[in-house]
Amino acid sequence: MPGVHKKIEIVGTSPLSFSDAVKKAVAEASKSIRHLEWFEVKEERGRIRDGEVAEFQVTILIGFKLEHDPGHS
Amino acid sequence: MPGVHKKIEIVGTSPLSFSDAVKKAVAEASKSIRHLEWFEVKEERGRIRDGEVAEFQVTILIGFKLEHDPGHS
Amino acid sequence: MPGVHKKIEIVGTSPLSFSDAVKKAVAEASKSIRHLEWFEVKEERGRIRDGEVAEFQVTILIGFKLEHDPGHS
Amino acid sequence: MPGVHKKIEIVGTSPLSFSDAVKKAVAEASKSIRHLEWFEVKEERGRIRDGEVAEFQVTILIGFKLEHDPGHS
Amino acid sequence: MPGVHKKIEIVGTSPLSFSDAVKKAVAEASKSIRHLEWFEVKEERGRIRDGEVAEFQVTILIGFKLEHDPGHS
Amino acid sequence: MPGVHKKIEIVGTSPLSFSDAVKKAVAEASKSIRHLEWFEVKEERGRIRDGEVAEFQVTILIGFKLEHDPGHS
Amino acid sequence: MPGVHKKIEIVGTSPLSFSDAVKKAVAEASKSIRHLEWFEVKEERGRIRDGEVAEFQVTILIGFKLEHDPGHS
Amino acid sequence: MPGVHKKIEIVGTSPLSFSDAVKKAVAEASKSIRHLEWFEVKEERGRIRDGEVAEFQVTILIGFKLEHDPGHS
Amino acid sequence: MPGVHKKIEIVGTSPLSFSDAVKKAVAEASKSIRHLEWFEVKEERGRIRDGEVAEFQVTILIGFKLEHDPGHS
Amino acid sequence: MPGVHKKIEIVGTSPLSFSDAVKKAVAEASKSIRHLEWFEVKEERGRIRDGEVAEFQVTILIGFKLEHDPGHS
Amino acid sequence: MPGVHKKIEIVGTSPLSFSDAVKKAVAEASKSIRHLEWFEVKEERGRIRDGEVAEFQVTILIGFKLEHDPGHS
Amino acid sequence: MPGVHKKIEIVGTSPLSFSDAVKKAVAEASKSIRHLEWFEVKEERGRIRDGEVAEFQVTILIGFKLEHDPGHS
Repeated sequence: MPGVHKKIEIVGTSPLSFSDAVKKAVAEASKSIRHLEWFEVKEERGRIRDGEVAEFQVTILIGFKLEHDPGHS
Repeated sequence: MPGVHKKIEIVGTSPLSFSDAVKKAVAEASKSIRHLEWFEVKEERGRIRDGEVAEFQVTILIGFKLEHDPGHS
Repeated sequence: MPGVHKKIEIVGTSPLSFSDAVKKAVAEASKSIRHLEWFEVKEERGRIRDGEVAEFQVTILIGFKLEHDPGHS
Repeated sequence: MPGVHKKIEIVGTSPLSFSDAVKKAVAEASKSIRHLEWFEVKEERGRIRDGEVAEFQVTILIGFKLEHDPGHS
Repeated sequence: MPGVHKKIEIVGTSPLSFSDAVKKAVAEASKSIRHLEWFEVKEERGRIRDGEVAEFQVTILIGFKLEHDPGHS
Repeated sequence: MPGVHKKIEIVGTSPLSFSDAVKKAVAEASKSIRHLEWFEVKEERGRIRDGEVAEFQVTILIGFKLEHDPGHS
Repeated sequence: MPGVHKKIEIVGTSPLSFSDAVKKAVAEASKSIRHLEWFEVKEERGRIRDGEVAEFQVTILIGFKLEHDPGHS
Repeated sequence: MPGVHKKIEIVGTSPLSFSDAVKKAVAEASKSIRHLEWFEVKEERGRIRDGEVAEFQVTILIGFKLEHDPGHS
Repeated sequence: MPGVHKKIEIVGTSPLSFSDAVKKAVAEASKSIRHLEWFEVKEERGRIRDGEVAEFQVTILIGFKLEHDPGHS
Repeated sequence: MPGVHKKIEIVGTSPLSFSDAVKKAVAEASKSIRHLEWFEVKEERGRIRDGEVAEFQVTILIGFKLEHDPGHS
Repeated sequence: MPGVHKKIEIVGTSPLSFSDAVKKAVAEASKSIRHLEWFEVKEERGRIRDGEVAEFQVTILIGFKLEHDPGHS
Repeated sequence: MPGVHKKIEIVGTSPLSFSDAVKKAVAEASKSIRHLEWFEVKEERGRIRDGEVAEFQVTILIGFKLEHDPGHS
């Protein structure tokens, strides 16, 4: 990965699984940032409602190549 | 989350996945504690048998609101 | 501190400060457990509402001497 | 917190206390970002001048809901 | 270890060694909880008196199988 | 687990989920090492392509009983 | 450092050394953000090709003073 | 901060707050060391008496410029 | 320690103490690897049976000088 | 422990055990510092010679009350 | 990086710099293992002699693709 | 390293590289302490000025043998 990259920290959620929450986070980030290359899981948590898991939450760092403006990503 | 909460540490297991192991842990804890609100994944491990994953084990902290007796939860 | 002690994990909240949130957590725990001796800060977080800090949240471990029944504290 | 959130890392300062430094950081961030929801303390440091604490510095992660453009927050 | 387990955090002390402090903690916990299965060392500290080690203190997490009531262990 | 064990560090990948990546890693390791007993998740990452998760990567430590030659496992 | 600062996470690369990779990351970030003040090394990795180090990669947090718009940096 | 600095580890206490405990630690250290420049919080704990927080304890690293004799500071 | 070294991760067990478990691990590793030089404790755990410590388990990293073949150690 | 304390970092060694290495470190430190109150284990390592543990090494932080001169302890 | 990879832990040394020590470690490992792909720095230490740095030591994890036999790498 | 050692925490700086900053720290410490034996890197940071790295800062722990007076080193 030559060049300079930036990482941003995103939290995805899913009622299904941690892996699905990661997919949700990546899909949302890709709407506004191009060239996403990798992610790193930093934290896994979730919400409970009525005694059952209602939501899996995964905090990931997403890395992408800086093109013009690191401040604006 | 105003008020005082307590966290307990529970290990759930599942032959299917880490996410399913979390569900098992939460379901079991909810049998005796009311008002479970969130969980935090602390550790993911597992057991291997005959060269295959036999069991996913997830240690989670479960948070719930203290009502009357923090010592007894 | 001769003898055997137990630590439980409590989350206190306060609109004022982290230190006040600790006091709240200790005060609540002392309602049902005797002989609390020390606390250790594990995590500091909080909730934001309308662009301002609405709540300081502090997770602490509280240590106390075991007397008869470690399971029930 | 359904949906996708982002966390940014902000350092607040105050001559008074760590809790006040958090308030300063949140207030500043709220000037340009809507829907701030929570913060997590990551580091507490400070500057000393003439043998006295001159400034409390707190690094926090601030979480908020992504609306249109994760790259631009 | 199929099923759901719980971990509690216990501090054992001994004038002899860290290993003996672990034994003390486990022996005390077993008085009121059945089915203790494993322990994990989390912290080792101690007290000094008159320039000599007076007490080894070991904080351990003890895991045991949940039977009926996770809240009450 | 009496006796002496060794842990090796393996990275499994899967297009499906973290749990599947663990299964892949264990299956591959079991081709050349006997008596695999447990695994511990150390890191979860992944690769992104065209704005979607292309690969879940899980680094695990795999523990197995040493028989004759710790150096050669 | 009175006032409020922000930290962003940048990965620099260099075929020469870790220190040079840091310089590359800072130089790139300074193209679009003013008032960079300090950096903190978070991770050092690299890529290997043909049995030799092909690239040193350093992840750093870069701190700078917030002026108008924390969301856009 | 050109030149070489040293850090020492000090524990301050206060019945009021963590921030006040930091001030106490810095004030005491400044009695015998010149040129204290910064501090870093490493640990926050405290003592409980009669069910209330009796003492906030903060362990900080204090940095100062080495002048003549690093061993004697 | 000029030259290149390798570290492997070994788990030793003992019914007596953590220190004895380390000795067991080192003795076993030395049967097949020459030039062991140092160890680093990474984790201390254990098994409980009938309410008593049945086994101390210590995970250590063992360092030794690479001679001909790093892959085969 | 009202008042201000200092912690220093000492490495003790012993051919016997980790606990004995701690005793050695404390005994040596007490020769020149009064009022040692507690220690915290930070790291456990050791040296191997001829395939056997030759030396247990324990790094501890030792806390003691500051009296006149924090710089000179 | 589809497929299964393994990581081994190697310590490189150099009288010049940390970056050079990494190069030494990678070069040595590549003598007996094919397809080395990346490294991760885990620890940086060194030896001092006559009041000067005599040796930079870097512990790295080296990742490579498993081909036939994970146990023998 | 039989005997008892002490570690002190020193921050070296250099406009050139992290490795040079370590050399500066060791050289300064050796002016007043004899028998320095090893160092451990704890933190790498730096200062930025005019969009370029102005200073590499490395915090190291330096270990040396205690001779007469641990308090005075």
